[in-house]
Amino acid sequence: MDGQAQDNITALMSEIGRAARAAGRALAKTDTDTKNTALRAAAASIRANAEKIKAENAKDMAAARAKNLTPALMDRLELNESRIAAMAKGLEEIATLKDPVGHVMEEWTRPNGLVIQRVRTPLGVIGIIYESRPNVTADAGGLCLKAGNACILRGGSESFHSSQAILACLQDGLKAAGIPLAAIQMVPTTDRAAVGEMLTMTKYIDVIVPRGGQSLVDRVMRESRVPTFQHLIGLCHTYIHSKADPAKARRIVLNAKMRRTGICGATETLLVDEAVAAMILPPILDDLAKAGCELRGDAAVAKLDARVKPASDADWDTEYLDAILAVKTVKDLDDAVSHIVTHGSEHTEAIITEDVAAAERFMDALDSAIVMHNASTQFADGGEFGMGAEIGIATGKMHARGPVGVEQLTTFKYKVRGDGQIRS
Amino acid sequence: MDGQAQDNITALMSEIGRAARAAGRALAKTDTDTKNTALRAAAASIRANAEKIKAENAKDMAAARAKNLTPALMDRLELNESRIAAMAKGLEEIATLKDPVGHVMEEWTRPNGLVIQRVRTPLGVIGIIYESRPNVTADAGGLCLKAGNACILRGGSESFHSSQAILACLQDGLKAAGIPLAAIQMVPTTDRAAVGEMLTMTKYIDVIVPRGGQSLVDRVMRESRVPTFQHLIGLCHTYIHSKADPAKARRIVLNAKMRRTGICGATETLLVDEAVAAMILPPILDDLAKAGCELRGDAAVAKLDARVKPASDADWDTEYLDAILAVKTVKDLDDAVSHIVTHGSEHTEAIITEDVAAAERFMDALDSAIVMHNASTQFADGGEFGMGAEIGIATGKMHARGPVGVEQLTTFKYKVRGDGQIRS
Repeated sequence: MDGQAQDNITALMSEIGRAARAAGRALAKTDTDTKNTALRAAAASIRANAEKIKAENAKDMAAARAKNLTPALMDRLELNESRIAAMAKGLEEIATLKDPVGHVMEEWTRPNGLVIQRVRTPLGVIGIIYESRPNVTADAGGLCLKAGNACILRGGSESFHSSQAILACLQDGLKAAGIPLAAIQMVPTTDRAAVGEMLTMTKYIDVIVPRGGQSLVDRVMRESRVPTFQHLIGLCHTYIHSKADPAKARRIVLNAKMRRTGICGATETLLVDEAVAAMILPPILDDLAKAGCELRGDAAVAKLDARVKPASDADWDTEYLDAILAVKTVKDLDDAVSHIVTHGSEHTEAIITEDVAAAERFMDALDSAIVMHNASTQFADGGEFGMGAEIGIATGKMHARGPVGVEQLTTFKYKVRGDGQIRS
Repeated sequence: MDGQAQDNITALMSEIGRAARAAGRALAKTDTDTKNTALRAAAASIRANAEKIKAENAKDMAAARAKNLTPALMDRLELNESRIAAMAKGLEEIATLKDPVGHVMEEWTRPNGLVIQRVRTPLGVIGIIYESRPNVTADAGGLCLKAGNACILRGGSESFHSSQAILACLQDGLKAAGIPLAAIQMVPTTDRAAVGEMLTMTKYIDVIVPRGGQSLVDRVMRESRVPTFQHLIGLCHTYIHSKADPAKARRIVLNAKMRRTGICGATETLLVDEAVAAMILPPILDDLAKAGCELRGDAAVAKLDARVKPASDADWDTEYLDAILAVKTVKDLDDAVSHIVTHGSEHTEAIITEDVAAAERFMDALDSAIVMHNASTQFADGGEFGMGAEIGIATGKMHARGPVGVEQLTTFKYKVRGDGQIRS
């Protein structure tokens, strides 16, 4: 890109940033009812404009077909009747969530009489960089709005028309509630330089949320000067311990892998204690193969089922997001933990065992955002946690970990009330 | 620096990082008593080695004198009897603080029977980059240890010998408790390339805490790939509202500016409603001038006291950390807020008023980590908040804001306990 084009993008993004900052300040003072009015009006607008959204989506789908995108990407891109209804319903559900802003998290009085409160406040302006799923436009816009944050959305070029149509509905909601339209903005260009600007606009953006694959995450890690909710990659493990209940293991593993293979909480690697592999694994491998799952295993696993292909080293480090499972035998719990520490992404890991002490040891030993005992890793989800909608699952250690819902999109400040106290 | 020297630094820092990561994993499992034993033994070692610490500090002081460092820097560098005693006492106080690790922050049960806990865990490895104050070695090492984190300390070249002597005492403490020595390490070189390595060692360092002036903060902002507790700069404001009690204002302002001028919670700019400036300011300006404070004001302020020099635009943006105060009249509360938003660093701001509604409006309108009513900004301190020792005051919006004590040096994970639940 030449210098003039870069200057134009910089100017455009600064303009968007300034408007977002101003809108964020206004939103921070906006009461709960007004925000909920906007969310409900946006949902109504999505329903009323379903045909228009489908027409815009058809443009994106046609372009995607011409570009020969994979069926998985095409699926993420498509907006049908039920997905449009789900977006509207999602916004209405966000309206029912508790407003975190202003909540007094803690309050105490010092011996000198100072009263200190820790109070929840919005983060300010949130930049969301995502890829092909257009419904992120509604989810992210709605969650940021509820938490009192302005947001700058930067969707993938594949979903540009769909996302613009959804944005128009969100802005209908803002209009209906008298909230500045700059509270939810979308970058009006697919130029990748705009992402570079977002990642360095520390003056205008408080947090970056990347929602996409490894290459996006890598770019954000490398370039971002703005704090980010890191990773959002899920190389999740399920570990069958020697004291596992075979029936529970069978039910959980099939669900953890196959319920939906494209979500970050899907299990990608199955670990099994070698002492029980021959007893527990065969029906599990059979279930998976019959459900259409490709199996890649170490030598011990391959011996148990002819459908198992040999796993390469790369398999232990791969987030498939597809109907493929890597299966490995381990010596014991320590060996399992060590494998997960080496190859995992600190997202979600589950142990299946009837030995409570072993379960506790597993859950203590791992640094992952979510650790589970006798449950499917697919429960790694804000809705399933009872937190309502989420913008993703954070795997960094700073600020928010696990599901990032409305509350996680806030920060806090201390309010100190005195009566003339000075420090000695 | 040539390529070979850079390679050597990279290798050295990776070695330190690997050792810290391993020690951090061990520390995460270390019980409270063991950590407290180490803290108390380290304090005892500091007391027992006071003469040696003073001798090493004398080397740093001689070098500083030869380099003509400013008196303020010399003062920060000096370790006398009472400062050494304070370091030892500080470690003992950290031993009395509640151990945050393992604390169940929240627990709830889902309709499907899953029990979800949010549990405090250490952050992992913390990198602390600081300047001339050698006592940061003890404070930072002690706080990280108590929160279950390994730390990598990188002190300024001026305090190299003093910090090494203190480190030896901390490691005596680790030895006494059987904790790996790599739990508290110090970079054994003053080569600035080592800082560059720390800022990009995302594999080995989880959080960077910069403790120093603007140039360090700028470098960290620019180069760091590791999440940081941002800023730690305090351009704090005290605002005298038209409904202020003059006596309270007088007492608070003198303390907020002059109690200690070199700390980040010291007031740097005083704002006064123009309607009351002529009535309230004169005795305040007189107190400050008599206490040795240089006054820089706008035209309206200069009319009130001949000792007031004209302020330049740069004064509103300067953290003096010295006996200098910028004084400005403002039209009203909105004008004060607007000045603070434009020129402040989101650290600590105070309003002095008897009008509670005005105070609430001020505290709501500002995004600063700490907002105060009728109290001295010098209360911006972990000890004064009742949180015990602190590693600094964070002004970023992510993770921790305000005083960063033991609890702020932790993160959390979710533990999910089931009995075979799968997701529908």
